Amino acid sequence: MSGSTFGTLFRVTNFGESHGPAIGCVIDGCPPGMDLSEADIQLELDRRRPGTSRFVTQRNEPDAVEILSGVYEGKTTGTPIGLLIRNTDQRSKDYGDILKQFRPGHADYSYWHKFGIRDPRGGGRSSARLTAPTVAAGAVAKKWLQARFGTEIRGFMSQLGSIDIPFESMDYIGQNPFFAPVENTVALEQYMDALRKQHDSCGAVIRVIASGVPVGLGEPLYDKLDADIAYAMMGLNAVKGVEIGAGFASARQLGTEHGDSITPDGFLTNNAGGILGGISTGQDIDVKLAIKPTSSILSPRQSIDIDGNPVEVVTKGRHDPCVGIRAAPIAEALLALVLIDHALLHRAQNGDAVR
Amino acid sequence: MSGSTFGTLFRVTNFGESHGPAIGCVIDGCPPGMDLSEADIQLELDRRRPGTSRFVTQRNEPDAVEILSGVYEGKTTGTPIGLLIRNTDQRSKDYGDILKQFRPGHADYSYWHKFGIRDPRGGGRSSARLTAPTVAAGAVAKKWLQARFGTEIRGFMSQLGSIDIPFESMDYIGQNPFFAPVENTVALEQYMDALRKQHDSCGAVIRVIASGVPVGLGEPLYDKLDADIAYAMMGLNAVKGVEIGAGFASARQLGTEHGDSITPDGFLTNNAGGILGGISTGQDIDVKLAIKPTSSILSPRQSIDIDGNPVEVVTKGRHDPCVGIRAAPIAEALLALVLIDHALLHRAQNGDAVR
Amino acid sequence: MSGSTFGTLFRVTNFGESHGPAIGCVIDGCPPGMDLSEADIQLELDRRRPGTSRFVTQRNEPDAVEILSGVYEGKTTGTPIGLLIRNTDQRSKDYGDILKQFRPGHADYSYWHKFGIRDPRGGGRSSARLTAPTVAAGAVAKKWLQARFGTEIRGFMSQLGSIDIPFESMDYIGQNPFFAPVENTVALEQYMDALRKQHDSCGAVIRVIASGVPVGLGEPLYDKLDADIAYAMMGLNAVKGVEIGAGFASARQLGTEHGDSITPDGFLTNNAGGILGGISTGQDIDVKLAIKPTSSILSPRQSIDIDGNPVEVVTKGRHDPCVGIRAAPIAEALLALVLIDHALLHRAQNGDAVR
Amino acid sequence: MSGSTFGTLFRVTNFGESHGPAIGCVIDGCPPGMDLSEADIQLELDRRRPGTSRFVTQRNEPDAVEILSGVYEGKTTGTPIGLLIRNTDQRSKDYGDILKQFRPGHADYSYWHKFGIRDPRGGGRSSARLTAPTVAAGAVAKKWLQARFGTEIRGFMSQLGSIDIPFESMDYIGQNPFFAPVENTVALEQYMDALRKQHDSCGAVIRVIASGVPVGLGEPLYDKLDADIAYAMMGLNAVKGVEIGAGFASARQLGTEHGDSITPDGFLTNNAGGILGGISTGQDIDVKLAIKPTSSILSPRQSIDIDGNPVEVVTKGRHDPCVGIRAAPIAEALLALVLIDHALLHRAQNGDAVR
Repeated sequence: MSGSTFGTLFRVTNFGESHGPAIGCVIDGCPPGMDLSEADIQLELDRRRPGTSRFVTQRNEPDAVEILSGVYEGKTTGTPIGLLIRNTDQRSKDYGDILKQFRPGHADYSYWHKFGIRDPRGGGRSSARLTAPTVAAGAVAKKWLQARFGTEIRGFMSQLGSIDIPFESMDYIGQNPFFAPVENTVALEQYMDALRKQHDSCGAVIRVIASGVPVGLGEPLYDKLDADIAYAMMGLNAVKGVEIGAGFASARQLGTEHGDSITPDGFLTNNAGGILGGISTGQDIDVKLAIKPTSSILSPRQSIDIDGNPVEVVTKGRHDPCVGIRAAPIAEALLALVLIDHALLHRAQNGDAVR
Repeated sequence: MSGSTFGTLFRVTNFGESHGPAIGCVIDGCPPGMDLSEADIQLELDRRRPGTSRFVTQRNEPDAVEILSGVYEGKTTGTPIGLLIRNTDQRSKDYGDILKQFRPGHADYSYWHKFGIRDPRGGGRSSARLTAPTVAAGAVAKKWLQARFGTEIRGFMSQLGSIDIPFESMDYIGQNPFFAPVENTVALEQYMDALRKQHDSCGAVIRVIASGVPVGLGEPLYDKLDADIAYAMMGLNAVKGVEIGAGFASARQLGTEHGDSITPDGFLTNNAGGILGGISTGQDIDVKLAIKPTSSILSPRQSIDIDGNPVEVVTKGRHDPCVGIRAAPIAEALLALVLIDHALLHRAQNGDAVR
Repeated sequence: MSGSTFGTLFRVTNFGESHGPAIGCVIDGCPPGMDLSEADIQLELDRRRPGTSRFVTQRNEPDAVEILSGVYEGKTTGTPIGLLIRNTDQRSKDYGDILKQFRPGHADYSYWHKFGIRDPRGGGRSSARLTAPTVAAGAVAKKWLQARFGTEIRGFMSQLGSIDIPFESMDYIGQNPFFAPVENTVALEQYMDALRKQHDSCGAVIRVIASGVPVGLGEPLYDKLDADIAYAMMGLNAVKGVEIGAGFASARQLGTEHGDSITPDGFLTNNAGGILGGISTGQDIDVKLAIKPTSSILSPRQSIDIDGNPVEVVTKGRHDPCVGIRAAPIAEALLALVLIDHALLHRAQNGDAVR
Repeated sequence: MSGSTFGTLFRVTNFGESHGPAIGCVIDGCPPGMDLSEADIQLELDRRRPGTSRFVTQRNEPDAVEILSGVYEGKTTGTPIGLLIRNTDQRSKDYGDILKQFRPGHADYSYWHKFGIRDPRGGGRSSARLTAPTVAAGAVAKKWLQARFGTEIRGFMSQLGSIDIPFESMDYIGQNPFFAPVENTVALEQYMDALRKQHDSCGAVIRVIASGVPVGLGEPLYDKLDADIAYAMMGLNAVKGVEIGAGFASARQLGTEHGDSITPDGFLTNNAGGILGGISTGQDIDVKLAIKPTSSILSPRQSIDIDGNPVEVVTKGRHDPCVGIRAAPIAEALLALVLIDHALLHRAQNGDAVR
């Protein structure tokens, strides 16, 4: 309700601020009897972790997760799984000078007016650091989906700033710091290096694909699978657009083009992105998200302070020059959380049978 | 949970099928003491109503709404408002021949596999007709937002198939059957007439703008205002993409371009679309949705029947050649529902004061 | 949220006022493929219906239910089931003289102060008439529980005013107007006749027993099965107390008495009332509810009007001299609604297997 | 949903097992700007803490709480408050011998059948230890209610086993280990000492009274204030009955007795327990809960093991001979949680004004 719980049957309740003592989440509703260890979760956290290349923030957080509950002798018990990640690298002095200013493109202005108080340390609650517990919960969801349906979820970069990135192979995603599905990322590296020199940042497009999704996930009217995916993705920091399947291109398609033909061997195309009438069809779920350029840049920006006076803001500190770079594992986690929630809901109404 | 309730504090629970006895909704959580009559609601229903021009379905439904509860002597009482719309024009014979076939681009395939049973009459629950109760509830929400904050919500068409529609003036929207903000719609009419002759359909882009939105609506982490807007819009039939503010264009912007500068007189630009960190800034909320071409077309399509045999499907009956045409008032209603829900939530946590 | 929705997976959203155009509910989440007709529901509504004996209100409402949606060719489709009951016998003149007075024991005072407005016709939203949609929804829940688990739910009167009613047999419950499990109800009739002559009313205790409940329903910490049962029962009009199993008597028991011994053939006693640690054990669920005497009586009572002036209130109109008499079928419905919700939740987490 | 979240607007999500690494909760929805320190919370935790007298379990846990988030410079920020309590005194060897047996009166049997797996260490999730996070959250709720409305919530023992405890004064409650409102507790001490010698346990009745509650809290139909109180209290470990106001005694009252007369100076009696039609009247909220005798006793009990074989169970370890003794502060916390949730909901719908 107040914005910190994701899902209904597989519920993730997130807490923490960027520079407070700890961040974490409580997962309620994980089915019992699944093997689960801290290593399972750490694996995904490490994919999202800062400080791993020169293209992301140099903040150095180990992001070590501790399971506080819900697992007994290596198996989930069906009771809430508490996950804790201590914050260790808190250079709050970096942020001291902009305590009373609103950084353009940041949540400073809206938080201040909403709450009348805000934790300015590292962006407080609005920091992208709070995606770590989401990734941790997503790791649990992914594991269950994989075990039950063989579902695989892969996120990758399909555009970096003005560079379109062709899809070569899923195999390359883990082999470069951009989560790019291409073998050669020199152009991306050069683009990023130039950007940093000019004290600027850029946006990106991330694509996430889930294969092995059973037919029938999603509810008819409001809680459609695509609606919940859009909610999840648009809620990710810096996202300004979400597409399913053909997305905005579908507005220019004709009906004879768009509707995916069906044959005894399956669908011939996937303009639908794996969802018809809000319900999964068994095809790949295909989602794209547009990410705006990082708002924290060294170039001076025009703004006001909390008293309304004009100020010039320069955001120092350690920031990602493109927040999209680390977004792929987060988008995977969010898609996993949506899918497991609908899978459990589907099972509530329809039982174990999967058509 | 099962997909038929929208919102948390201003909850709309929708029921009905396209060709069943009736459709309607229950609005729970409407503040007491507001003037409300059936005429207030009918006004919005009439904007969405079929049969009003040659560019939309010729199904002729008066869509007359009856208030069953929650209003006493012309004022809301704070108890649930039951709204009923009888279905009157039910030519179910139009659909008889495709009972056992899956129409490409339609929900037939996914419903059948999800539920093992489906009401085929006019698309049953998956029909766009079910947006009527949403529009009715949106009318109530709009009225409250207007009275309390002076909020105005306007939806219009910004693209029809391959035609980009420039923004001329809000005043034109109500003067043509396309909800287009332009004076001259001859090109749009010709495009649609040609499309019908070739037994095809087209997509569209709808833009919705809310002005007069107070600062502070939206919750920090998951229930961000933009996340809930994306959920609402992507859940609308045929929508395949949602953008807030600069949307997908923001992926190509630099940080120095995208972040909206702030001055003592307000923001200089609105790439954010009125939302920062998931919370409204007081700027216009600016949303775009991409709508796929109507799946029901007279051109033959390749598909299978429920036994897996290949069939050729031609969808007869009375259909909108572009479902985007009637989507503007629905998108307005959805945005109103999101805003009122967050306005009430904000009031719960922060009281009456609006900063 | 605003009080009109019951349940999470099997959600019942209730609307209506005692003397408005109609009352009803929307059931969202009913599993697909179950046989369901209006007759199934009418059967239960008729058990609760007023005007059936001289011991209940003489208001004569047929309470005929219409299914508006969610059922196709006699089977549930998995989409929301809209149920409508038109109000027909609305003698609102009976209530005209107490429009501006607060009847002792009634909701007049609290509604007025909460909402600043109230529908006074027949108690408006606070009328026990609003239990009819609950009973209708309960009929659907009962049918599903019966089909899936063989669950039987029986409610009966175990105390009428100061008369304790022994349990003789379930078979007698349907054979007298008191829902009493005894053959001879002459004493009850005489008690009620005397009460009416003295212009007074009395309370009652209702007991509800569910047999054939599977093991494992209920959640560990807050959403315990007994917690949800207590919520359901205490929410029923006029209920002031709820007991599970040994109830208040357990406070006087010793540990050696209370804990039900277990043998290879089952439990030896049922002090637990079929629930341990908030989770069903497979024993009978055994619930008691205390119902206060009807507040609407012909004897004059001391009160104030809405301006704070002292007044003497006499409640005319047609009222139940003991609201407990018609409470048995309602309590059954409420128990069914709690059980089906937990059964679906259990299935979401644990699948079809029932241990 | 899965049982670990309490409330809707002031949401408490609880995690942990008795003998796992830690227990705690996340409070989402606490209004911003309230003074809050760990000391505020510790105060209430210490009232519930074990090991404080010879009449409660000798388990010695400091139950030191750490605030992980949601508080900045001593004030709540409106973001989730994470609370952590490390488990320190974990003698799990005490429980080793009953790993595969079902203790009568315990949750062992139902958990095992529900989940197919259970954490047996100290009762795992079913331990009364999990009320500590509830008490911690309640401390926050109490503080807000006190600041905003002057609400005071006091819980005390009104019956210990077969001994009725008269009400002398609230002042005595904090002066004896029984939370008894009497000066002289010698009889209670002797009763408990005798009980321990005979290896037995006893039940209790706890009464909780909230004064200074504003008029208008509670929702009309299902989410009545008394319904939610019943849910809260019946969900507390070992509770088997809940009464509001006159409770079960109201079944024997006549209408002329029960309905509380109203005068210009207020209500003359409080049979209603402060709630009419599910909505608070401004009178004291008056609740009683019946607590069953502790199931963990040294006397041998008849049971079965997980293979269905008969066994004799003796529960060693350190247990409360009457779990009711420490229930008073927990019941206060639960009542505070219900009240704050309804206060926020009321404010959402009706704004700041309190009538």
